[in-house]
Amino acid sequence: MLERFRVPKEDRVLIGEASLRATVTAIFEKMGLAPEDAANGADVLVTADLRGVETHGVSNKMSDYVGLYTSGALSPRPDWRIERESPGTAVIDGDRGLGIIIGSKAMDIAIEKARNVGVGIVTVHNSGHLGAVGHFAMQAAEAGMVGMCGTATGTGILPTFAAEPRMGTNPISIAAPAGDEPPLLFDAATSAIAGNKTRLAARVGADLLPGWIAAKDGTPIMEETQPPPSGEYHQLPLGGTREQGSHKGFGFGLMVETLATMLSGVLPAMVDPSTLARHYFAAYDVAQFTELHTFKANMDQMLRTLRETKPAPGHDRVMYPGLSEAEDERDRRANGIPLHREVVEWFDDLCGELTVPALIRM
Amino acid sequence: MLERFRVPKEDRVLIGEASLRATVTAIFEKMGLAPEDAANGADVLVTADLRGVETHGVSNKMSDYVGLYTSGALSPRPDWRIERESPGTAVIDGDRGLGIIIGSKAMDIAIEKARNVGVGIVTVHNSGHLGAVGHFAMQAAEAGMVGMCGTATGTGILPTFAAEPRMGTNPISIAAPAGDEPPLLFDAATSAIAGNKTRLAARVGADLLPGWIAAKDGTPIMEETQPPPSGEYHQLPLGGTREQGSHKGFGFGLMVETLATMLSGVLPAMVDPSTLARHYFAAYDVAQFTELHTFKANMDQMLRTLRETKPAPGHDRVMYPGLSEAEDERDRRANGIPLHREVVEWFDDLCGELTVPALIRM
Repeated sequence: MLERFRVPKEDRVLIGEASLRATVTAIFEKMGLAPEDAANGADVLVTADLRGVETHGVSNKMSDYVGLYTSGALSPRPDWRIERESPGTAVIDGDRGLGIIIGSKAMDIAIEKARNVGVGIVTVHNSGHLGAVGHFAMQAAEAGMVGMCGTATGTGILPTFAAEPRMGTNPISIAAPAGDEPPLLFDAATSAIAGNKTRLAARVGADLLPGWIAAKDGTPIMEETQPPPSGEYHQLPLGGTREQGSHKGFGFGLMVETLATMLSGVLPAMVDPSTLARHYFAAYDVAQFTELHTFKANMDQMLRTLRETKPAPGHDRVMYPGLSEAEDERDRRANGIPLHREVVEWFDDLCGELTVPALIRM
Repeated sequence: MLERFRVPKEDRVLIGEASLRATVTAIFEKMGLAPEDAANGADVLVTADLRGVETHGVSNKMSDYVGLYTSGALSPRPDWRIERESPGTAVIDGDRGLGIIIGSKAMDIAIEKARNVGVGIVTVHNSGHLGAVGHFAMQAAEAGMVGMCGTATGTGILPTFAAEPRMGTNPISIAAPAGDEPPLLFDAATSAIAGNKTRLAARVGADLLPGWIAAKDGTPIMEETQPPPSGEYHQLPLGGTREQGSHKGFGFGLMVETLATMLSGVLPAMVDPSTLARHYFAAYDVAQFTELHTFKANMDQMLRTLRETKPAPGHDRVMYPGLSEAEDERDRRANGIPLHREVVEWFDDLCGELTVPALIRM
């Protein structure tokens, strides 16, 4: 993540992983979730914070989730079910369950199918927010598989040349196991920036860069700008402008929409605004493509080659996707997770209200 | 494709589809290919030209292929074989066969597996150039499936912040069938521009835009520039700079490298420069996810919504991926394929030399 999105030093409060995990689990339980589901949901959020993916950690998402459970928009005990199934595929109706809870169940099914027939694909519809899609790709990588995950939700992103937004930020991820090197973990919105980066930018007082957003009429804003108020701008696809490849960002967004939404058999939000989120999970059982140890050795050689590549002037080193996440995880497990003090205050209030254990400052 | 890459009007010679198909097939047969393989290879190239994908049509690729067959670098009659197989997956050793020939065979296997278990994944290594990856995704779409295809080859692209290139342009594609609307067909290099766009730019006298290439030390060139001589620049990933999302282009490139190379059980070109191209084919049998007619109706609604989206000021309309390709195909089937006169002259010379039918001007 760019430095401008990090919590400024003076606003940082360090919270230990175990404390954050316990508090988030307790809050989810108060929302009505089964204990195992509550712990799984906490794992998705806290792991995002450990990996430095603040956009998808507790700071940006916890208050949304609490609001959606409290209002009844999401079901804490969904009666999710497999609608259609084949040896390699399944389509799940999520029954308004939060994606971060149902996600690991869906990937478990994909992994099991991949053990049986080499590859497993699971789509989910009628579900809430999925959190960091990389989390579920990593779940497959930890099982010796190549994992992929994507999610389609909302309509904040402009197609190339459009004046009206049509797509979600539609992130996609891939993870693959390695031997000695930290695993490959790529997780990116197909928009110029993740949906909640504008909110994060507002919180940390950062400007938005040229090509990240467009004016209300669809014209890309090509100078640095303060985050406009919600509703006063649109988000651009990856690339920003046609010349810089926004048609590719738009296409990647449609790729995710096709895999997650169309292969769930439902309509995208651009057609039916009442539709909940749609997810896509893929697991490839490495051992049915090649020897797992060969795969890991090959991954190590590729990742090491990337990591040891000579940097361009002005840069310290070349990072492959997953490397800074592994480094952040090691650091934050030992030294705590930096949260903005306003986030910690929000937790303090909520924990008092719900009578659950408050966060413990390190 | 941007207007700057089109053949300038004064240099255009119109050739009929049937004539181009016949001549290319005859050339491939002279290279030693079996008649059916020759016709399949011609179909991949001519369809790219029909769809307006000049970068992957006869102009840029035919002379390469002839050179590779003539030198013996590629085998015209490869003894390709399935190395490892499961109900949903197969890994193929291409035995130095050209990708555009083996591609449709690999996708046929993926389609057959998808009919059996819902999804089919085939990887290929030890193979030549695959041509337009969208061609093979469309092959699945024409069989009522969602198709994907990617290929990893070469090392022309810089990772973010790198001074040395490591990845291929690693294009990826997805196609999905629709009802009344032209099908979705997205096919894009994960680099800022396709590898042979610099060659195409040189031929048509176009400049390269900011953020498309980098200086030899890895610094992105942020002004408009003439195509430098080969070896005097590097190509950038989609996004161009870190701020504009090059880490995402880099990540998408690694996604393709992982699916095509790692799941083939071989090393990428950045580690082993002698390795030939690696390919990835996926087919999802729509009918095992939802009703095919529902899927097509949903696709129609999505694609029509995109097509009818209000354009931003200065633009005529919003195009979804596959729309201009379908329009070009209709136009060029009727009115001929515009080739640069130098390309036609090259064909004339080769056809004389090989004693095969020359191109017929319309």
